[in-house]
Amino acid sequence: MTLLVIGTLAYDSIETAHASQRDVLGGSATYFATAASYFTPVGLVGVVGDDFRREHVDLLKKRGVDVSGLEVVRGKTFRWAGRYEADWNTRTTLDTQLNVFEKFDPKIPPAMRATKYLFLANAAPHIQMKALDQVNHPQFTMVDTMNLWIDIAKEELLHLLRRVDAVVLNDEEARMLTGERNLLRAGGAVLGLGPRYVILKKGEHGAFLLSSSAHFSLPAYPVEEVVDPTGAGDSFAGGFMGYVAEKRDIEPRTLRRAMLYGTVTASFCVEGFGVAALDGRTRGEIDRRFDDLLTIVTV
Amino acid sequence: MTLLVIGTLAYDSIETAHASQRDVLGGSATYFATAASYFTPVGLVGVVGDDFRREHVDLLKKRGVDVSGLEVVRGKTFRWAGRYEADWNTRTTLDTQLNVFEKFDPKIPPAMRATKYLFLANAAPHIQMKALDQVNHPQFTMVDTMNLWIDIAKEELLHLLRRVDAVVLNDEEARMLTGERNLLRAGGAVLGLGPRYVILKKGEHGAFLLSSSAHFSLPAYPVEEVVDPTGAGDSFAGGFMGYVAEKRDIEPRTLRRAMLYGTVTASFCVEGFGVAALDGRTRGEIDRRFDDLLTIVTV
Repeated sequence: MTLLVIGTLAYDSIETAHASQRDVLGGSATYFATAASYFTPVGLVGVVGDDFRREHVDLLKKRGVDVSGLEVVRGKTFRWAGRYEADWNTRTTLDTQLNVFEKFDPKIPPAMRATKYLFLANAAPHIQMKALDQVNHPQFTMVDTMNLWIDIAKEELLHLLRRVDAVVLNDEEARMLTGERNLLRAGGAVLGLGPRYVILKKGEHGAFLLSSSAHFSLPAYPVEEVVDPTGAGDSFAGGFMGYVAEKRDIEPRTLRRAMLYGTVTASFCVEGFGVAALDGRTRGEIDRRFDDLLTIVTV
Repeated sequence: MTLLVIGTLAYDSIETAHASQRDVLGGSATYFATAASYFTPVGLVGVVGDDFRREHVDLLKKRGVDVSGLEVVRGKTFRWAGRYEADWNTRTTLDTQLNVFEKFDPKIPPAMRATKYLFLANAAPHIQMKALDQVNHPQFTMVDTMNLWIDIAKEELLHLLRRVDAVVLNDEEARMLTGERNLLRAGGAVLGLGPRYVILKKGEHGAFLLSSSAHFSLPAYPVEEVVDPTGAGDSFAGGFMGYVAEKRDIEPRTLRRAMLYGTVTASFCVEGFGVAALDGRTRGEIDRRFDDLLTIVTV
């Protein structure tokens, strides 16, 4: 195992303009690990309640995910409920029940502490820091966050950002974190906070990769029909980090291609509810869509 | 002259969250011709009032634009006033005075009728058709339109679309014209209406080029500071068509590179009020930004 994710496993109840589903397997670590598993063996650290279904552990195991860091405790698994409007751009959270995640105290199994590639999925910065502290010299650590932590735990977040290699943010988070309206300037300001790389996600409009020396801009893969956008960001991160861990380098060319692979895994993710459309693909399907995307963006 | 544009010349009064200017030289033909003039000699057909200022004719002439098709009639030049909100995505039209444009009856000078490349800027479809009827066998005709004509002159527009090679639309117009919410499907449906090429503009999020056999997707150039987005679409069209006319072919590689040049001329356009920031560039500056953009999008 060369890639480790610390994050949530959840049951999501999702309404869209076209359909709805209850208690769909979700969570940042679930999406990330499923996407990354097409590229490299993945380890997962998280917590679930005793209601977490066997078949969902099996789904991860079947994808080669090492779940020895998955803690099962008495209580209910994290639950989220939300609704998307017809334009997909407006998401309303209807309910959040942290449940067993409320007291999540990440414990990385000793065998996983030598991981070279680390993804700290969205969580309170002090929890992300606790996880980071348990890993020995990772080569490349990427962190995700959200507006809530920028709002209520900015100091801890800024401290964390000085210790990671990359941060993935959506456009609004980048603006909120830096006070810069212009997305490019906001990205530049985030680089000034410590990370060598900033990935700015723009949803259906694609993503930027910024570093002090380079800038790469990529449109989203043109999905014919979006079914459920939940988990697209974590699926992007999983494809990105999975490919980087597979290649075992962070050369500019690798990072640019990783942006395409992240775009591809995110595009599969949104074609079904939960991880359903992302799970059960083959590496060949992933690579064919990568080639499609490459054709679409090649000048 | 190998490229001809038929469209408006206008005086625009523009308010943004940061500044405002009155009676700025604008209009679709002005933006288009200015952008295209970096690539090829351009001819312009349009109408202005007797208030149109000498210096503005001279500006076009200095850029090598053939203004022999510019009609000057008694009355006032077309005027538009609008306001942009701080996010640039909301534009409110405060005032539209068609003035002399209300009775615009395009008369293409005989020497211009052999033009190989033709751009019909946004106007009532029957006026665009009148212009098209005067040109002898153009090799590549592109048309622009707007929601107003989709609403009140759809039949004429559909008739026109069957006679042109390419149409440039923004995302909302494509959806409105086809009834398809999904942008890719909307683009595909537009192809079904006749044109071999559809350019879908997404403003700050870039543009798509669609044909039956190919799809090219390009992010916008990351401008550090937008001053005035007015004319970006026509400047895009001007850079696109200018490059195509310069290359004298419509090979896929030419069209993809033309998308980059259009993105570049649009990016200069938005850096100042009116055509101020687009005018007075050099081809070297255009090419340097083209190379920048190429670096940003190359995998």
